[in-house]
Amino acid sequence: MTRTIVASASREVVIGFDQPFCVIGERINPTGRKKLAAEMIAGNFDTVIQDALAQVAAGATMLDVNAGVTSVNPNETEPALLVRTLEIVQGLVDVPLSIDSSVSAAIEAALQVAKGRPLVNSVTGEEEKLEAILPLCKKYDVPVVAISNDETGISQDPDVRFAVAKKIVERAADYGIKPHDIVVDPLVMPIGAVGSAGLQVFALLRRLREELKVNTTCGLSNISFGLPHRHGINAGFIPMVIGAGMTSAIMNPCRPQEMEAVRAANVLNGTDENCGKWIMSYRDYKPAEGGQATTPVASGGTGDGRPARRGGRAGRVGGGGSTE
Amino acid sequence: MTRTIVASASREVVIGFDQPFCVIGERINPTGRKKLAAEMIAGNFDTVIQDALAQVAAGATMLDVNAGVTSVNPNETEPALLVRTLEIVQGLVDVPLSIDSSVSAAIEAALQVAKGRPLVNSVTGEEEKLEAILPLCKKYDVPVVAISNDETGISQDPDVRFAVAKKIVERAADYGIKPHDIVVDPLVMPIGAVGSAGLQVFALLRRLREELKVNTTCGLSNISFGLPHRHGINAGFIPMVIGAGMTSAIMNPCRPQEMEAVRAANVLNGTDENCGKWIMSYRDYKPAEGGQATTPVASGGTGDGRPARRGGRAGRVGGGGSTE
Repeated sequence: MTRTIVASASREVVIGFDQPFCVIGERINPTGRKKLAAEMIAGNFDTVIQDALAQVAAGATMLDVNAGVTSVNPNETEPALLVRTLEIVQGLVDVPLSIDSSVSAAIEAALQVAKGRPLVNSVTGEEEKLEAILPLCKKYDVPVVAISNDETGISQDPDVRFAVAKKIVERAADYGIKPHDIVVDPLVMPIGAVGSAGLQVFALLRRLREELKVNTTCGLSNISFGLPHRHGINAGFIPMVIGAGMTSAIMNPCRPQEMEAVRAANVLNGTDENCGKWIMSYRDYKPAEGGQATTPVASGGTGDGRPARRGGRAGRVGGGGSTE
Repeated sequence: MTRTIVASASREVVIGFDQPFCVIGERINPTGRKKLAAEMIAGNFDTVIQDALAQVAAGATMLDVNAGVTSVNPNETEPALLVRTLEIVQGLVDVPLSIDSSVSAAIEAALQVAKGRPLVNSVTGEEEKLEAILPLCKKYDVPVVAISNDETGISQDPDVRFAVAKKIVERAADYGIKPHDIVVDPLVMPIGAVGSAGLQVFALLRRLREELKVNTTCGLSNISFGLPHRHGINAGFIPMVIGAGMTSAIMNPCRPQEMEAVRAANVLNGTDENCGKWIMSYRDYKPAEGGQATTPVASGGTGDGRPARRGGRAGRVGGGGSTE
């Protein structure tokens, strides 16, 4: 059974097919967040601290930490800023961290100070990346996210994306890195632009699980880019990728609808023992006013919480019935 | 490609792997609804009419019609009542109907008056049922729901449930009924009682699709029986069964959370062309107050709807980013 072990100083987490879905909180990332970038440049980590605490409180399994505040000379500025951000976060929360940078020197600097066993985010199939990142993963004995693109970009052909993932796993093996320390990102396209984006990912996830036997992740909300009510698409996508074998995602744990989908899929996938986390999370649940309007039908229903049963199969399924 | 064709007098619907999920509205069913049963016995069909209209307005693809008001002498009373109910419903709405009864005489009486091509709900692997229902399906050229239990009850072993389904398909073939006119119900157990209920169903659905090549259905809300916030479990279950190959379900279309999950899964499964139905349904969507609280993080985010991108893979996925 594939087990990717990540850890903070005090807590170990296993990513695996028989484990609860690993939610990697995406919020500590200045990309596209000008205010956060400005704060971090000014040495103000208030938002970073808030984001760290809020994501863990919301149920994040891990936190991604990115300090890419600028595209100008990141090689000079990013290592020190990533180290400082990482040290603040690991001093504050006890979940394992993901070191997220496109700057190899920043990843190495962060690996030098990281406690436990962080995840490196990321390597691609690009030759330059493979040669820069894989030796670091071997040296620090840490797992790595492998993104299925290479010098030619992102292929629209899932078979090519699979081949890139396979190449990274093989190259990692050359460095002595085991497949269980590679977490493949099959790349999620926006379904609004690529109608087959969902089917592509589901097929890729099955192959990655069955043929390469690797854990998987993705930037989850990519799927809904450009569509209205993105949280609804994301919340539908989560159970589908979990059912297809995805074992983690980089996502926003502060979204209740998405986290509810994760918790439900864990129940249904058999990784929430005795439904314990579900019951703990929702035993006092009251639906919101408005969006959760019940049926306009005035009468009917058991009304007392007992299940109604379908007449044609009355008595056959013990737990039958409609939910009023 | 498996295509189960159902029809009302004026509308044809195809159930199939490349079709939008078929939502069979479950509400017209007095089982467990004492008030509705009393009304129907008294010849009052107001609730039936309301339920029919509300379910179609909510997006039901088909309606299930059940008139099992009593367990005392149903053979005497149910045929006439089912006929009357069916005639009222088919005079009111134009979606195809499912004739739901455990009384064979009621099913035949309803088939005699039904317009179009209704679905019969249901036959089981019980010898008596097979001999009563399959000849009717052949005679009236209608498809049938096949429930995977037999005289021995519901097996906890998915292989046995598969074998029962296979037996029904084979017996139907003996009557000249094609597999595309059998819609198998693999039977959904409550996950609160049977922790492997989800994994059992997903595995069964894949086998039913790949080996028997049949369409499938289930009494969807069985899965969440006994748990708090059942709609959340149901809404997570829907994308998972659709991803595993289920093509219809008997469920309550008047529940917004469940129908949202159906619509999202259709988008992700590639059966909502250009996301047309999703955009139509949610273009003006505003999340409800309360249950949909956004992240407690005060600052950050693009705020203008543009996607944020992950630094480690900046520029790689066009539609990247977090959803604020």
